[in-house]
Amino acid sequence: MIVLFTDFGWQGPYVGQMKAVLAQQAPDQTIIDLIHDAPVFKPHAAAYLLASLVDPFPNNTVFLAVVDPGVGSGERRPCVLQADGRWYVGPDNGLLNVIAKQSAEYKAWVIDWQPESLSDSFHGRDLFAPVAAQLASGQLPEMTETSLAQDPLNWPADLAEVIYLDSFGNAMTGLHASRTRKDAVFMLNGKSIKYARVFAEAEKSEPFWYVNSNGLVEIAMNKANAARKLGLEIGTQLQAV
Amino acid sequence: MIVLFTDFGWQGPYVGQMKAVLAQQAPDQTIIDLIHDAPVFKPHAAAYLLASLVDPFPNNTVFLAVVDPGVGSGERRPCVLQADGRWYVGPDNGLLNVIAKQSAEYKAWVIDWQPESLSDSFHGRDLFAPVAAQLASGQLPEMTETSLAQDPLNWPADLAEVIYLDSFGNAMTGLHASRTRKDAVFMLNGKSIKYARVFAEAEKSEPFWYVNSNGLVEIAMNKANAARKLGLEIGTQLQAV
Amino acid sequence: MIVLFTDFGWQGPYVGQMKAVLAQQAPDQTIIDLIHDAPVFKPHAAAYLLASLVDPFPNNTVFLAVVDPGVGSGERRPCVLQADGRWYVGPDNGLLNVIAKQSAEYKAWVIDWQPESLSDSFHGRDLFAPVAAQLASGQLPEMTETSLAQDPLNWPADLAEVIYLDSFGNAMTGLHASRTRKDAVFMLNGKSIKYARVFAEAEKSEPFWYVNSNGLVEIAMNKANAARKLGLEIGTQLQAV
Repeated sequence: MIVLFTDFGWQGPYVGQMKAVLAQQAPDQTIIDLIHDAPVFKPHAAAYLLASLVDPFPNNTVFLAVVDPGVGSGERRPCVLQADGRWYVGPDNGLLNVIAKQSAEYKAWVIDWQPESLSDSFHGRDLFAPVAAQLASGQLPEMTETSLAQDPLNWPADLAEVIYLDSFGNAMTGLHASRTRKDAVFMLNGKSIKYARVFAEAEKSEPFWYVNSNGLVEIAMNKANAARKLGLEIGTQLQAV
Repeated sequence: MIVLFTDFGWQGPYVGQMKAVLAQQAPDQTIIDLIHDAPVFKPHAAAYLLASLVDPFPNNTVFLAVVDPGVGSGERRPCVLQADGRWYVGPDNGLLNVIAKQSAEYKAWVIDWQPESLSDSFHGRDLFAPVAAQLASGQLPEMTETSLAQDPLNWPADLAEVIYLDSFGNAMTGLHASRTRKDAVFMLNGKSIKYARVFAEAEKSEPFWYVNSNGLVEIAMNKANAARKLGLEIGTQLQAV
Repeated sequence: MIVLFTDFGWQGPYVGQMKAVLAQQAPDQTIIDLIHDAPVFKPHAAAYLLASLVDPFPNNTVFLAVVDPGVGSGERRPCVLQADGRWYVGPDNGLLNVIAKQSAEYKAWVIDWQPESLSDSFHGRDLFAPVAAQLASGQLPEMTETSLAQDPLNWPADLAEVIYLDSFGNAMTGLHASRTRKDAVFMLNGKSIKYARVFAEAEKSEPFWYVNSNGLVEIAMNKANAARKLGLEIGTQLQAV
């Protein structure tokens, strides 16, 4: 199984072109579009989002992860990560760091393999997709073991920031609900946010936090757009009271 | 074949996570994304939309239908419907009622089967998808025959309301064109709407109705946004003149 | 492999209904959603976009291409094009003309085959999809060799216009980078546009052009929306200085 995690959006030919490469080079693999609106050009927030989504996937799943503002600049290396039995292919810009941080064990490689033709702006299609296809087919591309550019040890396990805004205005945070007490109250742009189990149990027109379906603390409002009401953006910080 | 009908939108990881469950639990099934912008939190309108779309699908198709504002509240039951040889899995909140109403015969069950882990907010992924996978694989989950919470006999066969607005501003209604005379004129927010066969035959900048490709009365304008011009929303009522 | 190129958008049931037809009539084929936001109702611009995307696809790929403002009017014929070993199915309204123009050799047919039921507004689902399924399965539908309604010889190989705006505000043009000198300067709504290799090498807040990943001249700005800043639309013309 190859799982796509990108900030490309569904518009344009980009997702389709990447899947056309996979379909040709790994025709027997199931391809899952996990998300295509990961935080645009924000690998730091995206790293926490990605790490919250991988648990249900089986061994040997290959994640093709692309949030890559430095594409073509030569400033970041393409890499492969193996963590807890799953594979990850993407830029070494922090995007895979929370996966590494959370894993029982991981190994990282810089990709030496080069395609015949490499565009400056679309490594997702030209480089990462062929490598993902190789890994999914049980082949190892040319690559050299390495350390990640940023040491995952220096990354916090929980990030008290908004990491994703969904189309309903709900705001995911990088805080794990399993490490957050239900009586925790957060301040967000001057507004205090208490826990509610489900939307229906929240007070009308009051923002609340709940345990989202991926185990993260998520800020929401019942039948209203919390992000707009509270002025939230990716990166907005939560203060615990 | 498993067919997805949801109000999740294409943004976020939700559709992808549901498809990942299906890919693992029913790997041989073709999965079709029929629509992911069904009327948000409006199972009544969505029920008429769903019923207009199922005819072309073969026997034993499993529809996974989720428009579920009451998720996690315990107020609605998860159910399975079998109607005219096709299966439907979703909340018992009216969403499946027009299917039942239109069918020659149907049978309904409340789902007793429980997953090991059930989130409060994402029954589509945790409960409905595994049940759809079981049905598609020819297995029956634990379930008990029941009546639908709302009796389909009390639902009108045709609904003189807007049930869907597409991205071009065309407004589908719950009226079947086969039961509507071509000389019918509708009033919509003070404007009278006559029939035209196709867009090219409509008067410029005049709204008209036509028989859409699913057999419903649909309100449109040639090269203009009828919904915006007429102030239409899901639920706006049509008066026949 | 069947490749979808449409202006339907991802909203609504349209893409899903077309894919349901393909899944039933060509169940062994891989289906790729190449793009669903091709220039809406603009077959001329869409023709240049389509032609920029087909090279990586293998022999016998079937493209199902629908940008079809004249659907149902009887003014345009449904057609099949074979060019350089690939198949194209769509309206004979110019959409396939740049493919024909660029090909070493091509052949065109008008489709005589008729489905049992043909809606007035959705030939993509009712006519083009079944024909694509037949071609992908190695069958030829009833069809008659013909010339395209507009002679490709009269179409320019390069089009000095904006042909696509992506969600980041980047503007693709119909100019091939391989035929454009790197010192070329374009005027766009009074602003001069110079070349940069990648976004990171462009001057901040200055629009530039670069060679996009499909080999076309593309107008962009680093971390800004070029289309909005320059007032670009599909059809906006470029003047070479």
